[in-house]
Amino acid sequence: MNRRRTEHKGLTIWFTGLPCSGKSTISQLVFDQLRRTGVKAELFDGDAVRQNLTRGLGFSKEDRDENIRRIGYMCQVLTRNGVIAIAAAISPYRAVRGELRSLITPFIEIYVNCPLEVCKQRDSKGMYKRALAGQLANFTGVSDPYEEPLAPELVLYTNDERPEECSRRVLELIVNLGYVHNGILPNGKSNVDSRPLKR
Amino acid sequence: MNRRRTEHKGLTIWFTGLPCSGKSTISQLVFDQLRRTGVKAELFDGDAVRQNLTRGLGFSKEDRDENIRRIGYMCQVLTRNGVIAIAAAISPYRAVRGELRSLITPFIEIYVNCPLEVCKQRDSKGMYKRALAGQLANFTGVSDPYEEPLAPELVLYTNDERPEECSRRVLELIVNLGYVHNGILPNGKSNVDSRPLKR
Repeated sequence: MNRRRTEHKGLTIWFTGLPCSGKSTISQLVFDQLRRTGVKAELFDGDAVRQNLTRGLGFSKEDRDENIRRIGYMCQVLTRNGVIAIAAAISPYRAVRGELRSLITPFIEIYVNCPLEVCKQRDSKGMYKRALAGQLANFTGVSDPYEEPLAPELVLYTNDERPEECSRRVLELIVNLGYVHNGILPNGKSNVDSRPLKR
Repeated sequence: MNRRRTEHKGLTIWFTGLPCSGKSTISQLVFDQLRRTGVKAELFDGDAVRQNLTRGLGFSKEDRDENIRRIGYMCQVLTRNGVIAIAAAISPYRAVRGELRSLITPFIEIYVNCPLEVCKQRDSKGMYKRALAGQLANFTGVSDPYEEPLAPELVLYTNDERPEECSRRVLELIVNLGYVHNGILPNGKSNVDSRPLKR
């Protein structure tokens, strides 16, 4: 039974979205819940990865694509070894996300959708402010484009849904698709904060 | 029974040695045998990795160390997820190899020991020739140092032992240390070419 509950296949879950859209928060919740329930999982956060795997890369389109390809390579290797690899990276360009999809099987793209104006208000690290003041070049959503996914497996609306609800929807998706046993789901509503949404 | 035969723990097997000492050949044999017997394994060859994970890095001490750290990071992540990660890289500097040892558990260092003169004669890619002609800077063994391991788990003498024998010794080591089931060993001598050594 124990073995059955933790049985799972390899998989890449790719979170894409604007800065401050909620990628890191949600992916961390998903990752924590998977680990808590005995699933082999790894989380690659775009910002953190720039400290090791992709040190020295900047924010030009070329460097951003290289950054994404390297995270993708890590995810690919883990996925084919039965690990659930989770990436949270702005990954603004559609073409390179498409490349990853063609390289990695199975691959799930999750669009963390939040209106630009709301992301700007959140601005957890003050980056939008600096970008809008012209102090930060190549900032996605301000001076650099963000290309929305055309056919993501899931869209999360983080202006309307709490992070815990978003995380649960991701977990339910991978259970429904048969990648993991439903033992990974939080019990009922007990782990989910059900206070009204902040708008 | 099948499950038992393929049960194994995560592990990093790190091959270090001079250019043309035999790292790639032996690590490929080890990798092939592990995969053939159902073990989760990945092989990172220093040269190949420079095409993706570490593209853009050169051969200064700083860049070499960064190259090794990135391969080490991949190995670390795989090892903690139950995969046998195999690296074959000159990795000439003792300090950064020591860093990896302190980061990755379990970690096995294998010194592929071959006299410099023999490596120069092999010179499979003509690199020593170019380095000796002064056309290639920072070439380990010619214009760059190689720091021998002080306490490797295993030393292979590729001037005296055939690649198949070396591979078998590596496999026996990881079986004896309890990392993998002995089902990974080639059957008796049947897979080993027992012709006399070429000297």
